[in-house]
Amino acid sequence: MVLNDLQKKYFMNEALYEAKKAAQIGEVPIGCIVVLNGEIIGRGHNLREHAQDATMHAEILAIQEANANRKSWRLPEAQLFVTLEPCPMCSGAILNSRIKEVYYGAKDPKAGAVDSLINLLGDSRFNHQATVENGILEEECAQLLKTFFKNIRLKRKK
Amino acid sequence: MVLNDLQKKYFMNEALYEAKKAAQIGEVPIGCIVVLNGEIIGRGHNLREHAQDATMHAEILAIQEANANRKSWRLPEAQLFVTLEPCPMCSGAILNSRIKEVYYGAKDPKAGAVDSLINLLGDSRFNHQATVENGILEEECAQLLKTFFKNIRLKRKK
Repeated sequence: MVLNDLQKKYFMNEALYEAKKAAQIGEVPIGCIVVLNGEIIGRGHNLREHAQDATMHAEILAIQEANANRKSWRLPEAQLFVTLEPCPMCSGAILNSRIKEVYYGAKDPKAGAVDSLINLLGDSRFNHQATVENGILEEECAQLLKTFFKNIRLKRKK
Repeated sequence: MVLNDLQKKYFMNEALYEAKKAAQIGEVPIGCIVVLNGEIIGRGHNLREHAQDATMHAEILAIQEANANRKSWRLPEAQLFVTLEPCPMCSGAILNSRIKEVYYGAKDPKAGAVDSLINLLGDSRFNHQATVENGILEEECAQLLKTFFKNIRLKRKK
């Protein structure tokens, strides 16, 4: 299913909704959804601190839910929306699940494995590639992270 | 804890034991353990087909168990043993969990993200690096995979 700009923003808003759930419980606010044929089939938000589990990134949780939903590890027609550029682990999970398209909000200059530091989703030596579009609701996605870290610094000062 | 050659082989044998569990249930035979202070704190074998979950690689499952065991997503003194060179997802999970040392058996020329296609664990632009030693019980690790795929081809011919 080809998405227009309004639909892309709609789905990124759903990823932002997930990110805000993370912020509410003190987790770094990153959210993700997986879409198939216009329907959300997986949702996730960062739970690393609550679960004390290094793998509990938003994308991993959303992909796992989408796999369970479809009863298949393969998601070849799926679209993934995430508020922050995926890290190597999550980019690898996108390759492993054969997701077709990735839309993300803000770039991650410190750990981004899609555009910033390496280009895992476009490397033709791997057995799958995903198309990528960045900058969807970029300001909102970045601002949520900035506000979160600003509040942490303020709390530390007190 | 610094490991001698005998200890490295001992722990890789434990990873091979995990890999054989995968083979027994028809999964591609890859196994992994996480070690801390000479003790195995996490085990995993590939469960992708049984779980129909693209993230259920041996390393992810072993890291998750080690995180649960230590009640911490950080494993800065841990050593990971895996029969096959980790893919991008699993290499990323190794970075995310701050594992110190990685020992693997056979190289993976198609998806290896440690030595074969990219060098994720040694890239100083990321916020963690792990030391790597390959070739531990390489023959046994590679042979297990070769036998598995040979048997699949034989079954298909019948």
